[in-house]
Amino acid sequence: MPVLPTTLKGAATSRRILDAAAVEFAERGIAGARIDRIIAAAQTNKAQLYGYFGGKDGLFDAVIADCLGRSSVPFDASDLPGWAVGLYDENLRSPAIARLLAWIRLERRPGGLVLDGLGLEPKIAAIAAEQAAGRVRAADPADILALVAGMAAAWSPASTAYAATADEPDAAHERRRVLLRETVARAVAP
Amino acid sequence: MPVLPTTLKGAATSRRILDAAAVEFAERGIAGARIDRIIAAAQTNKAQLYGYFGGKDGLFDAVIADCLGRSSVPFDASDLPGWAVGLYDENLRSPAIARLLAWIRLERRPGGLVLDGLGLEPKIAAIAAEQAAGRVRAADPADILALVAGMAAAWSPASTAYAATADEPDAAHERRRVLLRETVARAVAP
Repeated sequence: MPVLPTTLKGAATSRRILDAAAVEFAERGIAGARIDRIIAAAQTNKAQLYGYFGGKDGLFDAVIADCLGRSSVPFDASDLPGWAVGLYDENLRSPAIARLLAWIRLERRPGGLVLDGLGLEPKIAAIAAEQAAGRVRAADPADILALVAGMAAAWSPASTAYAATADEPDAAHERRRVLLRETVARAVAP
Repeated sequence: MPVLPTTLKGAATSRRILDAAAVEFAERGIAGARIDRIIAAAQTNKAQLYGYFGGKDGLFDAVIADCLGRSSVPFDASDLPGWAVGLYDENLRSPAIARLLAWIRLERRPGGLVLDGLGLEPKIAAIAAEQAAGRVRAADPADILALVAGMAAAWSPASTAYAATADEPDAAHERRRVLLRETVARAVAP
């Protein structure tokens, strides 16, 4: 567990370490990241980094918790098309999140859920409630969640086909948003 | 370019190197792979490996070409649901392929197509022909291809959500196949 900083200066240092580490881990993964580069970018030293985060694995876990905690796409089971488009846009704004999850998949978790504690249960229950109300098609609600997430990730920074990037023309993104929104609506319709 | 072996014994050695390298690269990626482990598993030596493949990068490229060349899911624009289910099943049989592509994404190609020379143009043209015949909905055919591939990859070994594995119960796979098939059919209907 990371040790919470108890001073404003400590909080600022801890924040700089998390930001520098997110860049380094997203770029190079867990095995490839170098603590020396992170402390140089965060203008700190190894003793402080180890004091706050314990080590590379603890720092990586803290980066993941920090990134997912700041993710800003609200889940709404009554608007799955809107959620999917929100994820598409978040991947454009913050490609590090999908890359960090992809590194976990490759380096730590070859099968099953990429991460524990993702808070999927309330999402699955909300989809089941929409199904019970006749507003979402019948099927395993966890499968529906995975499939909608898969559609949203079709152009993600972890895509094994085509990764959309913010430097593409707006028209390309808008075209994909329209298709994604319509397709998710068709997919989940009763 | 790899040098083609000119003897049966050389062909067998080259085959063993490719198989061992596919395992090593799929597990550890390009930077993390170790030539020493590959030559030990392939019962060969560095001189032979370098003679055939030039080095680690040449060997990685040869592994990718070999894996994709042996991929056995035929593309059929008139049966996109069947293609998607075929990809789901291939990911269960051969998780190395999706993992190799995911390593390329993370280590080499952060944006755009994961790989050149994937032969997408004929697939896109075939979808456009189905659209012209009124059998597939209007939209950019490359976007349709990406979206269907994304649906098929929802549970892939590179998924940033849930990766299906061959050791799950058959019923889980069959449930996802049914949902995937129906969803792709809905997605591409005119």
